[in-house]
Amino acid sequence: MRAQNLTLLTDLYELTMMQGYFKNPTDQIVVFDAFYRKNPCGGAYAISVGLEQVIEYVRDLHFSPDDIDYLRSLHLFEDDFLEYLRGFHFTGDIYAIPEGTVVFPREPIIKVIAPVMEAQLLETAILNMINHQSLIATKASRVVYAARGDGIMEFGLRRAQGPDAGIYGARAAMIGGCIGTSNVLTGQMFNVPVSGTHAHSWIMSFPDEYTAFKTYAHLYPNACILLVDTYDVLKSGIPNAIRVFKEMRDAGMNLTGYGIRIDSGDLAYLSKKAYEMLEAAGFGDAIISASSDLDEYLIDSLKVQGAKINSWGVGTNLITSGDWPAFGGVYKMAAIRNKGDSEFIPKIKLSENTEKVTNPGNKTIYRIYDRKSGKIRADLICLADEVFDESKDMILFDPISTWKKTKLKGGTYTLRELLVPVFLRGGCVYNSPSVMEIREICTKEKATLWDESRRLVNPQEVYVDLSDRLYQMKTKLLEDMSRKAMRHE
Amino acid sequence: MRAQNLTLLTDLYELTMMQGYFKNPTDQIVVFDAFYRKNPCGGAYAISVGLEQVIEYVRDLHFSPDDIDYLRSLHLFEDDFLEYLRGFHFTGDIYAIPEGTVVFPREPIIKVIAPVMEAQLLETAILNMINHQSLIATKASRVVYAARGDGIMEFGLRRAQGPDAGIYGARAAMIGGCIGTSNVLTGQMFNVPVSGTHAHSWIMSFPDEYTAFKTYAHLYPNACILLVDTYDVLKSGIPNAIRVFKEMRDAGMNLTGYGIRIDSGDLAYLSKKAYEMLEAAGFGDAIISASSDLDEYLIDSLKVQGAKINSWGVGTNLITSGDWPAFGGVYKMAAIRNKGDSEFIPKIKLSENTEKVTNPGNKTIYRIYDRKSGKIRADLICLADEVFDESKDMILFDPISTWKKTKLKGGTYTLRELLVPVFLRGGCVYNSPSVMEIREICTKEKATLWDESRRLVNPQEVYVDLSDRLYQMKTKLLEDMSRKAMRHE
Repeated sequence: MRAQNLTLLTDLYELTMMQGYFKNPTDQIVVFDAFYRKNPCGGAYAISVGLEQVIEYVRDLHFSPDDIDYLRSLHLFEDDFLEYLRGFHFTGDIYAIPEGTVVFPREPIIKVIAPVMEAQLLETAILNMINHQSLIATKASRVVYAARGDGIMEFGLRRAQGPDAGIYGARAAMIGGCIGTSNVLTGQMFNVPVSGTHAHSWIMSFPDEYTAFKTYAHLYPNACILLVDTYDVLKSGIPNAIRVFKEMRDAGMNLTGYGIRIDSGDLAYLSKKAYEMLEAAGFGDAIISASSDLDEYLIDSLKVQGAKINSWGVGTNLITSGDWPAFGGVYKMAAIRNKGDSEFIPKIKLSENTEKVTNPGNKTIYRIYDRKSGKIRADLICLADEVFDESKDMILFDPISTWKKTKLKGGTYTLRELLVPVFLRGGCVYNSPSVMEIREICTKEKATLWDESRRLVNPQEVYVDLSDRLYQMKTKLLEDMSRKAMRHE
Repeated sequence: MRAQNLTLLTDLYELTMMQGYFKNPTDQIVVFDAFYRKNPCGGAYAISVGLEQVIEYVRDLHFSPDDIDYLRSLHLFEDDFLEYLRGFHFTGDIYAIPEGTVVFPREPIIKVIAPVMEAQLLETAILNMINHQSLIATKASRVVYAARGDGIMEFGLRRAQGPDAGIYGARAAMIGGCIGTSNVLTGQMFNVPVSGTHAHSWIMSFPDEYTAFKTYAHLYPNACILLVDTYDVLKSGIPNAIRVFKEMRDAGMNLTGYGIRIDSGDLAYLSKKAYEMLEAAGFGDAIISASSDLDEYLIDSLKVQGAKINSWGVGTNLITSGDWPAFGGVYKMAAIRNKGDSEFIPKIKLSENTEKVTNPGNKTIYRIYDRKSGKIRADLICLADEVFDESKDMILFDPISTWKKTKLKGGTYTLRELLVPVFLRGGCVYNSPSVMEIREICTKEKATLWDESRRLVNPQEVYVDLSDRLYQMKTKLLEDMSRKAMRHE
């Protein structure tokens, strides 16, 4: 049935490599960085989400007797290695950027420092969880931005890529700024608001639309949103809804949280006409909610068209991030230290594509804020032991076009280290905030972006620079490799 | 932690509607159809997958004390309804098209006949599971088609939309025709082949590439696929791989299942050069495997370019169905019967868009095969009690352009009813085949499609027609509704 132990949620090669390290023992402690290269949906930022699930996964890592039996059946693994797995648990350190934080390409969102076998095993599950939830939170943030203050409901469970995609996708969508989800299980697991009213089938199971509406209104007088497009929005749905609202008003009921939902057709036209009819009947304050294959671009367009919609249900395109369904995060080795040594040896992965060359070394990230406005000036990736002084001038340079320089005057900026310890020596030292708390954090985080970096189309990229020391280290490694390669030719 | 009971994996409105039906009791038995409207990725077919998970879900449906407490905390549900939920289990009938079957738009893949409260609750989870797995199986089938007989490995777990998307996505990809997956948990749960070798990090953790290769070859001499693009494919990776293969050969080892993997760069050029170098060294039979953001179009193009690749690892674009990430299946009420009555009253959902008008009534589907070739002539959606005689002539007509008619001569075609009973009176009457058995079924199913309907771009649609009786019923319902609407104007 449903898997409870996720230890085998990994690519086989993590295990074959682990056995390789086991059979060729070293005392190597390695640094792996999980980071992404391209902002989703053509935006200029992403939101880091999924850490709570990574923590649960790492805490629970263990190979059950069934897991060992299964691995033995593959005829790839030897008894001594399987015996080692039987006692396996994570003993390393993990640093991470807290959930809800705005992040940018090439920044380590999670950094694992551990014996190579342990660090290697974690790769697949960490990427799976961070990639999924960061993607959906980022998409949600875009959709919320397009709605200009209107509430966005997450409605996509039925179109999600499996149960977890619905459950954790709704979690991520809440963090990204949605005001509620239709997903009851997510509501139960993460204590977030759930909502929903009725479907077309409700209407169809009654002899007529009016009776269906009236029955619903009696049941849920304080959350009476009537779906008006089963037969004909303007000829049938709205007139019947108005008739029911009038009866409620005439009965002396206090109409709150009432209104209509339109789920098909030309939402701009229908919402304007619906508003006119409702307003003329004295129901100008009714909620007019819309759903129907919406995304950030359609919502933006409907806003521009003056659609009279003040509540939005977004399904498929949010829960799958329809136009950009993968975050593309990777997990790359950055440094190695032999046990006993104090220094890490930086490691680099080459690529034809300059942007794909990894950043070597044991690193951290400082976010540089404008002291006055609190907005982000730039992020600085540096080595973990570097120290900066906010009172001093700082010179930033573009890591590709290095002649592009910016000088920050001492006292005009503040620094914040983004990576915080999550596991130390295998023990968890971090308490995840609740989802609604992370949502609050995320709202504040988004406010640290300049408007130019939030817009939907062609936004201004945020600078992610390298410290001088890291840049020099990277350049030297690249030159060494190039020299080695030339000798081979 | 990880949810085990999926009963609350539902949209809130299913529960608010359920309470509505509970408070306004009827003895209605309803028919709901789960179907989709548009073939994924511009293709001409889909593969129906996910039924085994639906069966597990329905069997396990129960509201735990925690679930009841949670629902009570929402202040939406009354005690008598919550008490009813406490004893809830499914008592109805479910019919389905077996997993691995080729299906077409508007065909009920799953049909639920049950008391309205029960049928309503199932909607969200059924759609979630069928939508996800049918999507990925269909995508896999396209990728496999493009590879023209080469094996496709599913490699996407790290980019899947959460753990389940990886687990069940790999299950679906196997059914769609992949020969293996990197996902160990899917291997364990569904007894399907897993495979994988090593990552760039393996190479980087050794002093040099040659040592890394040699160490790996000693460990896995019978599955020695070396990743050659960590530093430079042609200058370093291939020469080092050849050196190791030579050493293995010189040591008298029997080289089987050995070769290289290229994970970046121009795969056409690199694979041809790699083949030349391997062949010149006497390793012309080496596996040349490729991965790197592949999809069906890239594989097709590489085939056309004569790339010397004979094994393919496909990740992100398969596991997320990158260019078409949602199947779009819906669940619509089709008929109602009052308990005691024998006849169903057909129900229809209107839409501005003719194709979106639902098919009313308690229906089934017959697949019409060409007797000689075994290929599909057309599918016929009809009422559940209709009977056809293969020895008689049959006239088919397009349900929108009704003047388009085809006459099938008696004796030249065979019929097969696609929907089979899965639950009867709440009891499961169906045994799911194993995943590898379903994969076999699917291979045979794909062979029933004409080549014209399998091609990747602009394929020929397969006809899905309505029986005369169903067509007449639908037309009459539409005319009745139109007459009613005109009276209101």
